[in-house]
Order: sequence, then C-alpha cells, then structure tokens
Amino acid sequence: MSEVQGASVLERPGTVAIVGVGLIGGSIGLALRSKGLAGRVVGIGRDAPRLEEARRLGAIDAYATDLAEGVAGAEVAVVCTPVSRLVEDALAACRHGPGSILVTDAGSTKARIVEGIEADPRGRAAFVGAHPIAGSERQGVAHARADLFEGRTCVLTPTARTPPDRLGRARDFWAGLGCRLIEVDPVEHDQRLARTSHLPHAVAAALAASVPPELLGMAAGAYRDGTRVAGADAGLWAAIFRENRGPVLDALREFESHLATFREALEADDGARLLAWWDAAKGHRDRFEGPSLGV
Amino acid sequence: MSEVQGASVLERPGTVAIVGVGLIGGSIGLALRSKGLAGRVVGIGRDAPRLEEARRLGAIDAYATDLAEGVAGAEVAVVCTPVSRLVEDALAACRHGPGSILVTDAGSTKARIVEGIEADPRGRAAFVGAHPIAGSERQGVAHARADLFEGRTCVLTPTARTPPDRLGRARDFWAGLGCRLIEVDPVEHDQRLARTSHLPHAVAAALAASVPPELLGMAAGAYRDGTRVAGADAGLWAAIFRENRGPVLDALREFESHLATFREALEADDGARLLAWWDAAKGHRDRFEGPSLGV
Repeated sequence: MSEVQGASVLERPGTVAIVGVGLIGGSIGLALRSKGLAGRVVGIGRDAPRLEEARRLGAIDAYATDLAEGVAGAEVAVVCTPVSRLVEDALAACRHGPGSILVTDAGSTKARIVEGIEADPRGRAAFVGAHPIAGSERQGVAHARADLFEGRTCVLTPTARTPPDRLGRARDFWAGLGCRLIEVDPVEHDQRLARTSHLPHAVAAALAASVPPELLGMAAGAYRDGTRVAGADAGLWAAIFRENRGPVLDALREFESHLATFREALEADDGARLLAWWDAAKGHRDRFEGPSLGV
Repeated sequence: MSEVQGASVLERPGTVAIVGVGLIGGSIGLALRSKGLAGRVVGIGRDAPRLEEARRLGAIDAYATDLAEGVAGAEVAVVCTPVSRLVEDALAACRHGPGSILVTDAGSTKARIVEGIEADPRGRAAFVGAHPIAGSERQGVAHARADLFEGRTCVLTPTARTPPDRLGRARDFWAGLGCRLIEVDPVEHDQRLARTSHLPHAVAAALAASVPPELLGMAAGAYRDGTRVAGADAGLWAAIFRENRGPVLDALREFESHLATFREALEADDGARLLAWWDAAKGHRDRFEGPSLGV
C-alpha cells in the first residue's frame, strides 16, 4: 500500500470485494486497480473460469467462489449481481464481512432491495444503496472498461437508518471511480429510473419486435439507435421490470398517452398538432446533456 | 473535365444540379466533387447566403436562386427539398432542364411523390424516384459529409413508366455515391420505411416527451440513443408522417400491440412471458447488421 494515487488516498481501502464480476463489476475492478484506489481487489462469483478471465484481464487481483471467504478481509464489498439476487448477496456480505465493512451495490432498482437489506440489523449497519448509471447492452467482463463510470451519475439511496460513516465511505468510493453523485430516496430513485432507463428499454424492445428481420436492409440510424438496448439480456431486464413494476407501468401509461396524441393528430391529418407535438418532444431532447460517447 | 476518377468515368455527367443544398444535398455535392463524378455541381435554393456557405464548404461549384436557370445546362438534377415540396420542384427541373435530363430525388417517402411526378408527361420522361437511407437529426450543409452515402442503402423506385435509360443513369448516379442499391415499388417502399424509419422517429419523440427535463440528470445511454432522432426538425417530420399516413398508422398499431403485450405481462407479473417477449425482440435486433457508425 505504498502507492499514492487518486483522490481518496487517506480513505483508500485495503481490500475491495466485488460480488459478481461481469460488465459492471469488472469495470469497477479495472477502475479501482488502474487508479490505485484499493490495495487488493477480490472477485467473487460462482464460475471459476470466468473469474480467472477477470483476473487475466486485470479486473481483479484474486478471486473466491465462496462469498463468505471472499469478503472475510474486505473493507468494502460492492455487489453487482442481478437485482433478483441482490438482497441475498448483499446480506451475505454484511454477515460474513468484518464488522467495519461497507457494503454497497450497483443494482438498477432500489426500493425493494434497500428495504430487504435494511430489514436485517447487519444489513442496515453496513449497507448504502447505489446505482451507477452506466452500462451497456453487452454482458460480461470482456466488455468491462476502466472508464465506464467516468463522469457518469451514481445515485446513492441512503435512508434515515443509514449510518453516516458508511454513507461518507460510500460517497468516497463511488466518487473515486469518477462518478458524479446524486442522493435520493430509494422509492424516488425507482420512479425516476422507470422514466429515464426502464421505459426506454421496454420501448426499444417493442420497436425491435415491430420491424421484421426481412426489412432490416432498409433500416438505418433511427432503427439502430432506437433498438440498441434491445440487444441486452432478457433475464436481466425481465427482473428489473418486475422489481420496478408499479413505476414502470406508470411510465408506460404516460408514454402510451404521448403516442396516442401522435396517432390522433396523424389520423386527423392535423399538421399543426403534429408540429406542436414534435416540437414539445424535441424541446425535452434538446435539453439533454448526458453522455455523448460510449454507453 | 480532364480529371478522370471514380467508377462512372464514361457516364460522368458534365453538370449536376442539386435542388436544396442542406445535409443531404450538401453531402451529395461533397461526394460528387471529392470523387470527381461531375464536371460541375450547381446548387439551387432560395437563400443565397446559405448557397454561398455551401460553395465555401466545397459542396457546390456555383449556385442559382432560380431553379429554371440552375437546371438549364444540367445532365442530372437531384431534388433534395422537403417531401412537401418535392413534386413541384422535381417537375420544375423536368420542365426547365434539357430534354435529356435525368431528374432523381432523395425524398423519404415515395408513393404520392412518384405518382404526382409521373402524372406529368415531362415528369415521367425524366424522373426516377430514389431514397438514400442516410441522414441525421442535424440539418444544414454545415453537417454535410462526403462519405454520408458510403455503403448505405439507396432505394430506387422505378415504375412501369420509367424510361430504361433514365433508370440505368439513376443506378450509375447513386452507386457512384457509394450506395448499395435496392429497387422496389413506391408503395412497397413507403410501407417498409414506415416500419424501419418513420415509426422509430415517432417512438423516439414519444419517448422524449415522456421524460421530464428535470430527470435528465439520471438519463444515460438508453435514453440518449432512444431519443436521438427526436432532435430532428419538426416541419420535416410532420410532413413525412403526413405523406405516409396510412403505412405509419399501420406500423404504429403493430408497435402498440407489442407494447400492450409487454404491459399485460408486467401487470400479471409474469416472468416467463416477459422473458419470451424480450427474447423475441432481441432476436430481431441481433440480426441487424446496418451502419454501426455515423448516422
């Protein structure tokens, strides 16, 4: 631990455990190691050959297929497993890690997960919910990138029960990876992400389903971009939609009403309404200043 | 005319007139000039300062604000004005150009346009409908690129009335710009493009309308790509939707039915149906091999 790099020198954890070393977990490992933000990065998963690949790619220093063993000496554990497994894995990290461990996560939904973890005394003593808003339709550590989080928003979702010291350490951890931090309530997080992420994914898939493969030779940029995230993993997204069912259904209803306005204006061949409808939408889009490169 | 470059040396037209020198017309001019495919490129428009900009950017050699004057010595005129003006402008080019002129276009819709032009004897003697499937949400000659058409599909829409020599020259012209050619009936073109392009545009705008600006800080790649084309010009798109009203409404109905399937599966919290729904959509998307860069 003699190297001195990065912004969080004084707080640099000795060992960070990453539970689930895929695209997100692998990118966290690459970032930690390239920035010198951890003394040691331990990957935890069920598949030793995949963990070996992560090690070979430089995302982790070592690995364990047993979660309890992997988190035993960790100062931070970051849980990057699918949302359907997150409560279980985070609680295991809280229980088997040292008393001082900070457990955080990278799940795309927060309300049920935070509630589930905080229902347990060990959970609420160690856990701070997080969602770094960065990803890809691709999966696996082979697509991981050290700069995936650079300049991206990470939403922290502390509650009244979150210990202040853990919150401070979670802020340092995610800011160290390059994230811009926002803090909101877990329920609010899910309502917002239903609009900004989950709805766009559902829409992309419905659009992909609407264009038969035999017409793809006549598809170009609008199709390519509008359907890109439909290439993501079905299991991952079915789980996210179910975790965030109510807010996603609300967002969908709003989307359907905007589409109905368009349909009615077109059925009426009403040029002025079509213009106004498009301009209102364009007005929203023109205010977006999000990531222009990468995913 | 001493330079000899490009694939169409023998057929190289002396003068090509471009009616409407924006993103598409400007890119055609840049491509013609950089490939040496025309002796002279004349831009035609109503706004002299914009035409001067096009000349300064190298998209045209000269310009005219009077269409009749601009096409007077042209062997080819390519009409790149908005779909609502296309019939009028193409017919003017057919009437005022030399008897041997080939008139082609770059309109996003074809059925009504081809029908309108072919209703006129001068029109059907000179015109071959075309739609190079390349573009951008951006407008204006400042965004034009010499390689915009490289490897992109251009749909030609000849009919039983199209003179074979004009069709041959239209093929040479668009292939010379780098396009891969497809030939289909104008009505079929519009039905296909309703799915592959017009629907994705409507969906992008409805999605943009569904995400309030105050949430944009939590939006990332799925939003960015899913709404990109909503940044396009309202007037352009309102006109395209109206031109292709029937097929766009059909495509919209299919899209709405795919979305309804998703909504019902989510309302029922039916994981197996959500998985199957997503996987079917992903199966379409995974077969897309369209342009991976640019727009």
